[in-house]
Amino acid sequence: MASTITETARATDQEAVREVLDAVRAEGRTALSAPEAKRVCDAYGIEVPQEGLAASAEEAVSLAEEIGYPVVLKIVSPDILHKTEAKGVLVGLATADGVSSGYESIVENAKAYKSDADITGVQVQQMLSEGQEVLIGAVTDPSFGPVVTFGIGGVLVEVLRDVTFRLAPTSAEDAAAMVDGIRAAEVLKGVRGGAGVDRGALAAMIQAVSRLVTDFEEITEVDLNPVLAREDGATAVDARFVVSFDETDARPPRYSQEEILDTMRALMQPDAIAVVGASGSEGKIGNSVMKNLVNGGFEGEIYPINPKSDEILGKKVYADVDDLPDGVDVAVFCIPAKFVPDTLAKVGQKGIKAAVLIPSGFAETGEEELQMELQRKARENGVRFIGPNIYGVYYTPGNMSAAFTTPYDVKGPVALASQSGGIGMGILGFARSTKLGVSAIVGLGNKADIDEDDLLTFFEQDDATNCVALHMEDLKDGRAFVEVAQRVSKEKPIVVLKAGATPAGTKAAASHTAALAGDDKVYEDILREAGVVRARGLQELLQFARCLPILPTPTGENVVIITGAGGSGVLLSDACFNNGLQLMEMPDDLNKAFMEFIPPFGAAGNPVDITGGEPPETYRSTVALGLEDERIHALVLGYWHTIVTPPMVFAEVMAEVVEEFRGRGIEKPVVASLAGDVEVEEASQYLFDHGIPAFPYTTETPVEVLAAKYRWARMAGLLDRR
Amino acid sequence: MASTITETARATDQEAVREVLDAVRAEGRTALSAPEAKRVCDAYGIEVPQEGLAASAEEAVSLAEEIGYPVVLKIVSPDILHKTEAKGVLVGLATADGVSSGYESIVENAKAYKSDADITGVQVQQMLSEGQEVLIGAVTDPSFGPVVTFGIGGVLVEVLRDVTFRLAPTSAEDAAAMVDGIRAAEVLKGVRGGAGVDRGALAAMIQAVSRLVTDFEEITEVDLNPVLAREDGATAVDARFVVSFDETDARPPRYSQEEILDTMRALMQPDAIAVVGASGSEGKIGNSVMKNLVNGGFEGEIYPINPKSDEILGKKVYADVDDLPDGVDVAVFCIPAKFVPDTLAKVGQKGIKAAVLIPSGFAETGEEELQMELQRKARENGVRFIGPNIYGVYYTPGNMSAAFTTPYDVKGPVALASQSGGIGMGILGFARSTKLGVSAIVGLGNKADIDEDDLLTFFEQDDATNCVALHMEDLKDGRAFVEVAQRVSKEKPIVVLKAGATPAGTKAAASHTAALAGDDKVYEDILREAGVVRARGLQELLQFARCLPILPTPTGENVVIITGAGGSGVLLSDACFNNGLQLMEMPDDLNKAFMEFIPPFGAAGNPVDITGGEPPETYRSTVALGLEDERIHALVLGYWHTIVTPPMVFAEVMAEVVEEFRGRGIEKPVVASLAGDVEVEEASQYLFDHGIPAFPYTTETPVEVLAAKYRWARMAGLLDRR
Repeated sequence: MASTITETARATDQEAVREVLDAVRAEGRTALSAPEAKRVCDAYGIEVPQEGLAASAEEAVSLAEEIGYPVVLKIVSPDILHKTEAKGVLVGLATADGVSSGYESIVENAKAYKSDADITGVQVQQMLSEGQEVLIGAVTDPSFGPVVTFGIGGVLVEVLRDVTFRLAPTSAEDAAAMVDGIRAAEVLKGVRGGAGVDRGALAAMIQAVSRLVTDFEEITEVDLNPVLAREDGATAVDARFVVSFDETDARPPRYSQEEILDTMRALMQPDAIAVVGASGSEGKIGNSVMKNLVNGGFEGEIYPINPKSDEILGKKVYADVDDLPDGVDVAVFCIPAKFVPDTLAKVGQKGIKAAVLIPSGFAETGEEELQMELQRKARENGVRFIGPNIYGVYYTPGNMSAAFTTPYDVKGPVALASQSGGIGMGILGFARSTKLGVSAIVGLGNKADIDEDDLLTFFEQDDATNCVALHMEDLKDGRAFVEVAQRVSKEKPIVVLKAGATPAGTKAAASHTAALAGDDKVYEDILREAGVVRARGLQELLQFARCLPILPTPTGENVVIITGAGGSGVLLSDACFNNGLQLMEMPDDLNKAFMEFIPPFGAAGNPVDITGGEPPETYRSTVALGLEDERIHALVLGYWHTIVTPPMVFAEVMAEVVEEFRGRGIEKPVVASLAGDVEVEEASQYLFDHGIPAFPYTTETPVEVLAAKYRWARMAGLLDRR
Repeated sequence: MASTITETARATDQEAVREVLDAVRAEGRTALSAPEAKRVCDAYGIEVPQEGLAASAEEAVSLAEEIGYPVVLKIVSPDILHKTEAKGVLVGLATADGVSSGYESIVENAKAYKSDADITGVQVQQMLSEGQEVLIGAVTDPSFGPVVTFGIGGVLVEVLRDVTFRLAPTSAEDAAAMVDGIRAAEVLKGVRGGAGVDRGALAAMIQAVSRLVTDFEEITEVDLNPVLAREDGATAVDARFVVSFDETDARPPRYSQEEILDTMRALMQPDAIAVVGASGSEGKIGNSVMKNLVNGGFEGEIYPINPKSDEILGKKVYADVDDLPDGVDVAVFCIPAKFVPDTLAKVGQKGIKAAVLIPSGFAETGEEELQMELQRKARENGVRFIGPNIYGVYYTPGNMSAAFTTPYDVKGPVALASQSGGIGMGILGFARSTKLGVSAIVGLGNKADIDEDDLLTFFEQDDATNCVALHMEDLKDGRAFVEVAQRVSKEKPIVVLKAGATPAGTKAAASHTAALAGDDKVYEDILREAGVVRARGLQELLQFARCLPILPTPTGENVVIITGAGGSGVLLSDACFNNGLQLMEMPDDLNKAFMEFIPPFGAAGNPVDITGGEPPETYRSTVALGLEDERIHALVLGYWHTIVTPPMVFAEVMAEVVEEFRGRGIEKPVVASLAGDVEVEEASQYLFDHGIPAFPYTTETPVEVLAAKYRWARMAGLLDRR
């Protein structure tokens, strides 16, 4: 039987680690020697094999006699990091003669590998052969800071990449979830009658590592690989530590939630807007922004600023920021980059809280200096800003289109933000084409100040928003994002399209852990930890944004497919399986109840195959049953175009029955796949407009959006995971 | 260093295996004992550990002395298949005492596990501890017959499912490709300075197993797990064989290629069509078929059959099949199921070669008997048929819509077939909506006779078709399909949407191999062996069908992204990575050449970021360079909607430049992702119409279709895989 995970945190000896690190720093090294590694492990309760350092073959033999055979010999040298590569490891030495000659040959090999290597000696180690090989490690991520990892170890580690990551420090619960969260978790629990391993000891070791890297920021990589996990305990057979004493990059300044809301309300819900560089000339950005604000129906004050005009679009023009009346909340910038920092300073001095910086010509074109000047002037003058290098900001409840792109006016519950302008244009086009109701569309651009955490903090309390969709290329402060996202995602789904998921430059990494952390898996696991639903591409981001807000939250895992086309039923089942949805195992009484409505050659079970050629009433009765029965939590509909039930008839009947149950307070997520001639396109839009995400010519998409809702609901703890 | 794969086939001793199997059959067993398994392995040159069978503790000790310590003891009983579960295995026994007491306890455990187990004795086996654990096996697949498998073995096998399958018998080349084709292949080649294993020995063992199951059909499962692979050789530590002496199901009858073409030409390119059950009444299937044929412009003769009419749609009506004139090629059935078998017999007697059976009411509604009668009568009377339970058959070059669904007339190079009617309707609607040019749309329904191999054989030689897209739920004769597909896919892409990919009922499988074969991986690997491009869902099938024929075949792996939106560039890069496309590493001269055309703050490298706000000329120049340079093999374009280059301008310029190069004989695949306002939809269709698959609001789809073309080209051997 596998053990339960119950071990609690052990006492740690921070002083011992400090001593080791001081010595390493004094010698200008970046890696710990084996004895140093052992000392650090001991200080944090990480079990390692019995061992000792031998400076001669005789010492090696006497150590081996003390530890007991068989033993392992390993070269100890500050200049040799990959011992195996240097042929610096010998295993299974069972006699005094073997140890003695092994010592000599290992030292020889090391010299052959690197003639000028400084050789401290040879480590003689107790040989542990039983147990499952796992890996426990930690690495400092540029965005998230210290993260811990756990996975299958040994030679397979980099090939199979069966690992999981969490932010350090890691709670006991999270550490246990890591142990059970890899693909090979079953092996650790014991398969085919085999005993499981001590998962509690593994979780405790994960926690110890996570505390260690939290306590000592200078430890940038930990690599315990392999850790041998036995039925009773776990031992780190090889431990490697990489350190860095460089000053860490200054994290961006942090603001209190109240400060953020104060800024964000000024930005999103201003009473008065100044347009710096407003223009009356067609084709100018300052003209597009003015038009979007005025014609878009913004109800507050609009103050154009331009030294050369008197009136633009019927609004009085001010010559300079200094001339503005009081009470301006936000300034939208439409002037060339080089003038921005000084004008931003003036804006701050005027008491304006926020600025929208549309201009490009900063870090994205290599003008890093200008961008830093911007940041400095903003901080000095107490103004916060969004951008630069953005299309602008839309907030539909206030009819505010502070942007130079085309206006947008379909109001609804989704807030979207993109780091890239191109993606922003894609959002606009898709939204318009599919009548996607939005509360806000926000360009983030270079994110030199306001970023995703600020947006989330605002949308969290914004009643007009119940779903947030983000396109991001990087996170300036991943920890801050996780902190806010963890809170917000409990209430409102957050969908993230993380660009740049391609692994790159991982080959040169010094440790296994660093190599593993180089790819997208860190983002994958930590965004999940934050409760975020991830989209795999732009289209998926947009479809999730469109559908998540209109889908009711399911209350359980039982999904039922009702289909008029057996062929669609099979494909929808495949899609459910591929997307982690659970097809309900149908109890007999429910099968019987469905069979009441469908022809005898139809099939109950799941999918419920009502067969082709059935009238609208059959779709209605079976879907009504699916909504009525409390054991069913979500419906996937497969429609087949026939003369008996044409597409729009199907759509109207389905909208009606779902509406009827909604009136009775019964709301379940329903999605539909429509197979048929072109009329199914209109029918799909009609269904969407009535709260049923529906798609023509696809069996994948309806299931993917339902699965996204489930992923969110599970992470938010809104339904019990089976 | 890793060994090369060079071993050649060894001689086999079929008689020895026959003797073993005869004995097993005589005793009514379904599994081989360990000594029997060893004999079979010996007969086919599969290396196993030294071993012997002991009937007492004393015998065990004397065997162990002979073999040499340490040894393994294993219970031998026809009633115990899972020895570990029965605690019937002891490893690492290094002394005579250990072996003696081990013998006793193992027998005791076996009795405790199954009190009535017939215990033959205990196997004493040489203990092999070094080496990488792999699995080699074989299983009889219901559709494909004997298939072999290779993968990572040991406790991780079922968890990681890192295995690959091939049809048996397996060539030396394929066996070697299997060894190198699993995810963990790197481990076998040797990682981080470790020695590789003898991959030649593994390939030879795969071949031996594949020959064994080919020579002896009654061996339905082989499970060599673990096989220990060392630097010099490989040993099957545990070998399990399951046999079945049941008569195998009769395979469907096979026809010669000439016979198939004769039938298929009658079906697809008839000079004269009879419509059995033609009708003049609106709403009847027999009326829809008549209308589609007559109004669709079919140029051959149309002979309606109906005892109660004289004329339908201006065509003379015949009372009965017997009354038809000679020279009818195909009969389309629109009569109730129960009348079909007899009428089909008459059709055959009349010398009509083929029939289209639209009616439902056969196996799909539980009427298995009626369907078998159909098959019998067809064979007896020399007529072949498609269906029953289908919408019909379209063949556009002959303006033939022998179907009751809506007519279709956009001619083009794609032939589509679906097993399900619902999917067929989806094909029609999508095709119409996207102006997808098709040569044929075919319903396969119950596939009681004509199936995919027949279709492929026809489309192979059909000049109107250059791509075949198939929706299938099962393959009646997987081997026949692979045989034809392997040939056809060398010339024309075959896209398959295989429904029913959900693993089911694998838990009860007796061996690891059978458990692994229960899921979709067998189809995955064997369809790839057949050169087939697999689609993951209906939408993907349709998009691949739409785009593969218009994309030129690439001649190399170098893909270059050219984008006006940096954001799209990153997402397109991600998509390339996720879809196995190789972004070209740009040589300096090429980077310089691109930089000539783009602003200094733009980025060369790959993606080529021309930056937003550039005029059409920049798109034109960079794309022209991409088409011109011979080192570049495919282009992915990312468009960003701006006032400077509006969507239709972009589309026209791109169409023009691609056309210009085509005129010069330079054809490379080009796909595009368009981010912008709704005008990008029209621009995308324009680009598609001009040979550039282009998609609005998505960075995934353009790359997916390009990747599909690459997958096909690689499998067809049309470009060198890196």
